[in-house]
Parts: sequence; structure tokens; C-alpha cells
Amino acid sequence: MTNENNTLANKRHTLAHLLAAAVIKKYPDVKLTLGPAVDNGFYYDIDFGDTKPEEKDLKDFQKNMRKMLSSWKEFTHQEVSIDEARELYSDNQYKLELVNEIAERGEKITLYTCGDFTDLCRGGHTDNPAEEINGKAFELSHMAGAYWRGDEKNQMLTRIYGIAFDTPEELAEYKEMLEEAKKRDHRKLGQELDLFTFSPLVGSGLPLFTPKGTLIRDLVIDKIQNIQKEYGYQKVTIPHITKKDLYEKSGHWEKFGDELFKVKGQSDTEFVMKPMNCPHHTQIFAGKPRSYKDLPIRFMESTMVYRDEQAGELLGLSRVRSISQDDGHVFCTPEQMKQEIKNIVNVIKEFYTSLEMLEDGKYWVSLSVRSEEKADKYLGDTSVWDKAEAVLEEVAKEENLPYKRVEGEAAFYGPKLDFQFKDALGREWQLGTAQLDFVMPARFELEYTDNDGEKKTPVMIHRAVAGSLERFMAVTIEHFAGAFPFWLSPVQVVVMPVNDEAHSEYANDVLQQLTNAGIRAEYADATESLGKRMRNAKKEKVPYIFVLGDKEKNSNTITAEGRNGEKLEDLSVADFMEKVTK
Amino acid sequence: MTNENNTLANKRHTLAHLLAAAVIKKYPDVKLTLGPAVDNGFYYDIDFGDTKPEEKDLKDFQKNMRKMLSSWKEFTHQEVSIDEARELYSDNQYKLELVNEIAERGEKITLYTCGDFTDLCRGGHTDNPAEEINGKAFELSHMAGAYWRGDEKNQMLTRIYGIAFDTPEELAEYKEMLEEAKKRDHRKLGQELDLFTFSPLVGSGLPLFTPKGTLIRDLVIDKIQNIQKEYGYQKVTIPHITKKDLYEKSGHWEKFGDELFKVKGQSDTEFVMKPMNCPHHTQIFAGKPRSYKDLPIRFMESTMVYRDEQAGELLGLSRVRSISQDDGHVFCTPEQMKQEIKNIVNVIKEFYTSLEMLEDGKYWVSLSVRSEEKADKYLGDTSVWDKAEAVLEEVAKEENLPYKRVEGEAAFYGPKLDFQFKDALGREWQLGTAQLDFVMPARFELEYTDNDGEKKTPVMIHRAVAGSLERFMAVTIEHFAGAFPFWLSPVQVVVMPVNDEAHSEYANDVLQQLTNAGIRAEYADATESLGKRMRNAKKEKVPYIFVLGDKEKNSNTITAEGRNGEKLEDLSVADFMEKVTK
Repeated sequence: MTNENNTLANKRHTLAHLLAAAVIKKYPDVKLTLGPAVDNGFYYDIDFGDTKPEEKDLKDFQKNMRKMLSSWKEFTHQEVSIDEARELYSDNQYKLELVNEIAERGEKITLYTCGDFTDLCRGGHTDNPAEEINGKAFELSHMAGAYWRGDEKNQMLTRIYGIAFDTPEELAEYKEMLEEAKKRDHRKLGQELDLFTFSPLVGSGLPLFTPKGTLIRDLVIDKIQNIQKEYGYQKVTIPHITKKDLYEKSGHWEKFGDELFKVKGQSDTEFVMKPMNCPHHTQIFAGKPRSYKDLPIRFMESTMVYRDEQAGELLGLSRVRSISQDDGHVFCTPEQMKQEIKNIVNVIKEFYTSLEMLEDGKYWVSLSVRSEEKADKYLGDTSVWDKAEAVLEEVAKEENLPYKRVEGEAAFYGPKLDFQFKDALGREWQLGTAQLDFVMPARFELEYTDNDGEKKTPVMIHRAVAGSLERFMAVTIEHFAGAFPFWLSPVQVVVMPVNDEAHSEYANDVLQQLTNAGIRAEYADATESLGKRMRNAKKEKVPYIFVLGDKEKNSNTITAEGRNGEKLEDLSVADFMEKVTK
Repeated sequence: MTNENNTLANKRHTLAHLLAAAVIKKYPDVKLTLGPAVDNGFYYDIDFGDTKPEEKDLKDFQKNMRKMLSSWKEFTHQEVSIDEARELYSDNQYKLELVNEIAERGEKITLYTCGDFTDLCRGGHTDNPAEEINGKAFELSHMAGAYWRGDEKNQMLTRIYGIAFDTPEELAEYKEMLEEAKKRDHRKLGQELDLFTFSPLVGSGLPLFTPKGTLIRDLVIDKIQNIQKEYGYQKVTIPHITKKDLYEKSGHWEKFGDELFKVKGQSDTEFVMKPMNCPHHTQIFAGKPRSYKDLPIRFMESTMVYRDEQAGELLGLSRVRSISQDDGHVFCTPEQMKQEIKNIVNVIKEFYTSLEMLEDGKYWVSLSVRSEEKADKYLGDTSVWDKAEAVLEEVAKEENLPYKRVEGEAAFYGPKLDFQFKDALGREWQLGTAQLDFVMPARFELEYTDNDGEKKTPVMIHRAVAGSLERFMAVTIEHFAGAFPFWLSPVQVVVMPVNDEAHSEYANDVLQQLTNAGIRAEYADATESLGKRMRNAKKEKVPYIFVLGDKEKNSNTITAEGRNGEKLEDLSVADFMEKVTK
């Protein structure tokens, strides 16, 4: 017997059948609908009628699945006619709908049977579940409501979720990761660290950033803008709305018009909230005549864009309606393209190096190019595309980027380099990007006078370093579990006198020295016990706690405890400064 | 004969009659409508029918006015019945409308005659125009279209404007001021200095700030925020939209709902663009429990608000739809109120001192308090108001502010201190403000736990230093005629080698020294003549031009020309730095 069907996806799909069989055993009158394999396991959507399955049922289903598994030794299948299928599912409107759709597409209708359970199915199971599936490597995790086919106009069903892996060890590892992710959940940590809040009066997806959250945002923006200044980027400022004419010209209105927030005042003018900044930035470029001597022109701006995300899809800072972009656009000649892309790559490298997120194996770069199949979806000249893709690949090679060509991932307006980061839990996030654009400059009729006196169209490069600041914060809070690198910590040091009377003068002196040196230091006086103060500071993941008592006062030194357990003793404040700025 | 009627307003009103008489003389068939005195003179709105008056006509009217003036020695008036008036104006629908309105109000209908010209009028003229009005102290300035009664649904009339003063000298002075204002017009200078631009695709009232304009904005914001940091202000960040629920709670929806920009996505949720930041900031305060130990809490944020200004009222940066506020809100106990107001006054003082706009006679402060007549329009307890007004007055006294109590100028939610500045042309602008608010904290049910364990409502203080950055830029561009103080100049020094071959190395070295010292310096190489380069730099109002030739190179010094004509010689770069940072 070959084992080519023994994939994890097939195991998961098989387990969905097994789940359905266990449910039917306890509740013979439920109506089964659909039960696919998913990323971490499987689920089955079931219409329980008037029954309300409970937590206890989940346990029973799982127990029964394990029991039945030993008798599931082989899948058989048979083709049935449409009439047979309709007869079979005459009292299940969901399966009936599926049967009719299969018939309409002119495909075969197949039933798969294992043990004494039969289901409408296209196949894709393990050959011998009893032997190939480890009963300890799966479990039912939870239930939730789900509309039939995801449409809220349809019947609400019960979705039962299971997680499944090849081995019990992998299952345990996954559960541990989930547990860790829960602890690191940025919504929970964000509140504990007092970084942001939401107000029901303001609305979901619209975070309000507290002083500490704003400080982190500003530190990120300042870091990126300072790095970029070296490469000649200049800040510009645009409003958050525009007449819709801007997007009619850019083409976004036709493509994304429905998804934009519309703005209406008392006049007839139709305004729109900007979902991106590039069209506005073209208008600053177009604001005066440009010569080849002025290029490259590099604009940067940290500003909010607005997207009409569905309420159900909003999630903490990961998915919001007000999106802060650290945006940037370069207008240059075709000859300058390569150097500008290189500069952007270097900005991204320098920024993520400061976060220690750029180590080997922690990231890769997608060289996102056209797919040959769908050549017609890309705008612009083939030879220009060839050139542009070649330039990006040259940069990727010369900068030693761990890159892969990914076909079909280019934007319709040009190819790009997308930086993909793996976080501490192994999850992958796209953050930085550099994208060539041959379409927008032409649409907006941007031009510069070249040294031969001719009017030419500049190339436009879109780039993001942190991407959306909200998503960046969500990712980094979870990646660092709230323990941000020293430079990014809202509070870097908490200074604690052992007792107020004897040590507050010295402790305040140390605090002042730190503040003067540009360290963000807080003071915790001794109205609370040292133990409690230390627990508070640790909960806030403050990088260093200074505990100052007689010993420190008499020797004019500090004793510092790092949040990673590191202990620094007999240091002067200057020594400490030298250590942390290194 | 008493001269109590010999006011400038009466002269101007008289001149409106004289203008009408001159027009009638040349075009007997026109229909007169309304002709009042205004701030700088007078105008008359006239229906010229099919005739189109031209520039030449203006000259004729003016000539005739002066000629007729000598015969205008006395005004007489008579009361007429409504029927007589209707008969008199039977072929002038405008006057007829006025007559009917006067009759409806039950007032007398009066006709005033001087020379051989009679007009429907309430009076208010000089007794003897020929003697009291100086024929050289007025002139007709221009014509423009104006709708009857300002309503665009009505007939378009021709408005003829005149300017008039007591003496020819005052007229000349005013015209000179106008000429100067024209030269300083921030829309013209803004373009010349490349500070901002508008795009017809984005829309009017929505400025796009170029790198130099953004730099000025950022310098202003940084300066204010740095001063404020000393007083414990912390930056926060809010989105630009909110559910309308926020403004229903604050009361703004009821008061200003029509004037807000409405935002609509695909869902039913009704969003609004924020026209102010205070309600959002209350929600950050409300985001976690607060103790008296946490107070005062001081939020600051530089952010754009949006107001649906009518297209016809938009003007450069003076009146825009996207308004950048350097906003700030303090939440404190009643006991802390006075010190917080003092701090705000000191921030405003320090900021405007850096602009040399706080000299004696250049500003005054309005202590804006309740009016006794309309006591019911103010919300909150009388005793609280008394206390608050007293606190503001104490601060004004202790800080030696040149203040005046202005009754009836308080906001409905509390009294305030408004800083009024006079610009170089003598025009007055309100920029900084500190406002006490007893209403909003209660509406949002904000609270803190006091040291007695009781829940109490904090006092809220609204404050602005620069006010709207757009209006601040419009005012300062015109006040300084583009020649910003050194710290606020986008480019502070232009370095020019006399010729490239001999001096570029030295000039670049100087440029580098300046840049390293934090000076914003640009380089102008010798591809253009020294004269042309200097003219360009002067047009851009750059504070200092360094011209570097043999003499400077050999002695390792600089020669600098200040934009005010000042000449600095034989200075080292260090000497220069010392001079300008002083």
C-alpha cells in the first residue's frame, strides 16, 4: 500500500468525517453541511436544529471519535446519479444545495464511506485512518456560530473546531504556542502596558494612543525618518480627505470605490477619506515645474489613512480602520531607480537591525514579479517590466538578501521587494516593502525636463519600512512579549530608593542624571514596599530597575536589575550610560 | 451747527449717496439697491440692466462725485407713506422689497435728499458734505459682482467699492498698507517661498505642504511641544473620525451637527470627521481609573481637524477645511486650576517671545467673561464661574498681562484668556488661548478618586498656543513678509563659492561645519553668476548668505550678508554660530 495519501491535510479531512460520525451517533437528527481541513486542523458546520450542543458534548464527541477511529480501516466510495443524491439528501437542504451545484458544474457526485459513516465528498482521505492517524494527535478545541456559506442572510450553524497534527508532540507544541500567543496577545499587553485604549463612543477599529503608546509610535517614526534623512528624504504634509476626482484620475475609484469612506458636507462636492497617500504626493510633485537636476525627489510622511474594514474583521491593532503609515515616495529617472531601491533596502535593514529582527533565518525577501499566465493583468510595457524585475533582482543579489522570486505577486503597476519577518512564535508578517510604479506617474501626467530639454515621465517608487504603525505595534508587542528593545521602551529605567528618608535625595540625583542624559526614567518612591514596586516595574517590562540604598549612596554607584535577570553592580551612572548606549 | 454727525462712518455713508447720484447722472435707467458704509469706505450695489460698466466708468463716476460734492451743502429728509413709497419705486423691485419690509416692521419710511439726489434711507449723514468731506480723501477702488442680499439665487448686481478717510494723508497711508499687504499676501509669498500648494484634484481649502512648508510646521510644533514638556505635557494620538455617538454625548451634535463632515462606509454606522479634539481626549482620560495622585494629566497633540467651510469663504491658508491644531487639554482638580493656567500663559509667552511678537503694544489679552444680560446662555454653577473668572484675573495680574475684561466673550462652558496679537500692518489676530471648561468633564462622566476616597469630576482646560497652524502660517508669513526669524527659516544660510574651481572645496567644508552644527544650510554652486545666486537667496528671504572667495579661504573665515543688510566679516564659523544662537 502506498502512503501518498497519508498527508496531514488528508488526515485532517478524515478527522472532519470522523467528527461528523461522532455527532450523528449522539444526535441522529442534525443536518451535516460542510467539513474541510484547515491550517491547524479541521472543522464541521452542522445544523443542530433546536438542540444546543454544550461543552460536555464536545468531550463526548472527542471520546467517541477516538473510540470509532480503531474501526475506521478503509475508505470506499461510490458514484451516484443526481436523482439518487437528491433522494438521499431530500431532508437536508444544505447537502441538496451542494448536490445541485455539483450537477450544474457537470461533475461526478461521489459518496465516501468509512466505518458505518457515509458523506457527500470529493475524496482526499488517508487510506487507513485507524493505522495512520494517531488518536492522541488531535482534539476538539471549541465551538462557534457560523452562517451557512459565511453569508449572514443564511441560517446560523454550529461550527465545531478540531486541531490535529501528525504526532502528539506536535499537537502539544502547537498548544503551547497558542498558550504563549495568548499571553503575548497585544490587546492584553497593550492594556497592561497602558499603550492604547478603545472607546465605544469613538468606535471599533479606531484606537486612541495613550502617552506611552504615542511615545513608541514617535520613536519608531523618528528612527525611520532619521535614517531616511541621510538618503535625502524630506517630510511633506497632506490632508486626510480629497475630492473623489483625485481617485478617478488615479484609477482607484474604479477599482476600489466601494471600499472607500465617503465624506459629505453641506455642498455637493464629493469627498473621500484617503486610503493611501501616493495620489496626494503626486500633486506636490506636480505643484511646480521639475528639472532632471531636482531628481530624485523623495517625500516621506507619517500619516493616517482610512479603510472601511468590516466590523467583524477588526482585531485590536492588527486590523484597524485608522491606519498610520510611515509612507514614502520617490520620483526619479529610470537611471536612478536602482540606487534608490538600494537606499530603501538599506533603510529597512538598518531599522530592523536596531530591533534585532534581521538575523539569519528570521526573515526572507519576496521578489514579487509577474506571472506569465496572467500577463494581461499587468499595466505597462513588457520591456520596462523586464528591466525593473532585473533591477530588483540585482539589488537583492548585491545586498545579499535571502530572496525568492515569487511569480504572480507583483502589483498591477510594477514588481516589488517584500520583506517577510518571522516572529518569536514562528508566525510570518510582511512589514517593509519597495515597489516600482510605472502607472501612476503617467496617469497624473507627471513630468520633468530632462537634460536634452525633453519632457519625460518620472519613475515612482512606493516604500514602507514599518508598514502600518498599528500592525507594527501589534507584531512587535507580541514578538517581544512587551519587552521592547531598550531604545523603544517607553520607560527605560525605574529608580527606587530603598527608603524615602535615607535615600530619596541620592535617588533623585541619579534620576536627574539619567534624565539629563536623555534616558526615560521614572521614580518609584517608598510609599509602597520595595517588593511591590519591583513587581510593578517588571510587569511593565521596564529594561532596568535601579535599587538605591546605603551601599549605593555611600559609594556613589548604582545597582541595577535587568528584566532579563542580569544584575549590574558598582557602576557609576556614566558606566551605565556607556553600557546601554553601546 | 454741532458737528456730532461728522463721523467717518457718516462721511462714508454720505459718499455712498454721492456715488449713486454720479451713477444715475450717467446711467439714468439703473436700479439702485443698497449702499452702506463699511470698514474702509463704502459701496453701492446697483442693477445696471444690460449695461456693463467698465473701468473708464469708475473714473467718470469719481470725477463727477468730486464735482457734485461742492454743491452738496445740506441733507433734507421727509417721511412718506407706504403708498407714496411704493409709487415712487414701482419700477425698482429691490427698493420695493425694502419698503415692504420697513412697513412690515412698522417703522417710518424716510427719503433723504442732498443736491438733486434723493434716496430711500434711514439717515446718518454728515450735515454739510461740501464742507466736511475732503474730495481728495476718497476714491473709487474697484467693482465686483454681488448677489442681491448675498443670496446666489437672486439677481447678480454690480457692487462699486470706494475707500474713504478723513484726510488725504490717511487715505494714502491706507493705500500704502494695502499695497504692502498685497506684497506680503501669504498666497503669493507661499508660492514664491515654495511652502505649500493646492491641487484642483484634491480640492480647495485642502493645502498640500511641501518640504519647506512642512519644516516650518514641524519647527513650530517642536518648539511648542518642547516648551510644554517642561510643564509635564505628554503627546497622545487619536484618529480623525469617530462615531457620531461621541458628539451626541458631548452636545456638539445638537449644536453644530449640520456643520460637520459626515463619513459613510458600507455599514450603517454613522461616522463624523472630528472638528475638534477634546471629546476624543476625554476618552483617553476615561480609558483607565484615575486617582488625585495622577492629576494634573496634560495631553498635547498636533493633529488635523475638519470643518465644512463654504467654498466661497476659503482663502489661502487663512481659511481652510483641514485645520492643523496644536491642541492640548489639562485635566486637574479645582485647586490645581490656577497653576495650570499660569503654566499655559508661560508657554504662550515663551513661544511668542521667540518670535519677537510679545513686545509692549504688540499684543493684549482678552479676559473673556460672562455678560450679565445673557446669564442663561452659560452652563454651570454661578459660584464656580465667579471663582474661575477670579482665578483667570489673578493670573492675568500676577503675570503682568496687558488685559481687558471683555463681557459676553466667554465660551458657554467657561471663561477664557485670549491672546490678541497686532501684526506689522496693525491687523489684530487671536492666536493663543486658555479656556476653563466645567461642562465637558461632567457630560462625559469623567472622574478621579480624591484623597478622601470620593469620586470627583476634574476641571478641564483647553489651550492653544499657535492656534491653527495654517492660520498661524498665514499670519506670520504676512507679519514677517516671509522673512521668518532665524530659528524658523526653512533655509538659514546659503553658502556660495565665488568660483567653483578655486573655492568649492573650502565652501563645502564650511557647509559641512554648518550642517554639523545643526544649521539648515544650502549650497549654491557657481554655474550661475554670483549676482543671480544672491538675488535668488534674497528672494527666498534666507537670513544669511555666505560669499566665500580667496580672502575667506586664506584666512579660514567667512563673510556673511544678512537679509537686513547687516554685513559680518572676518568671522570663524564658530563665531557665527555663537552670534546666531545667542
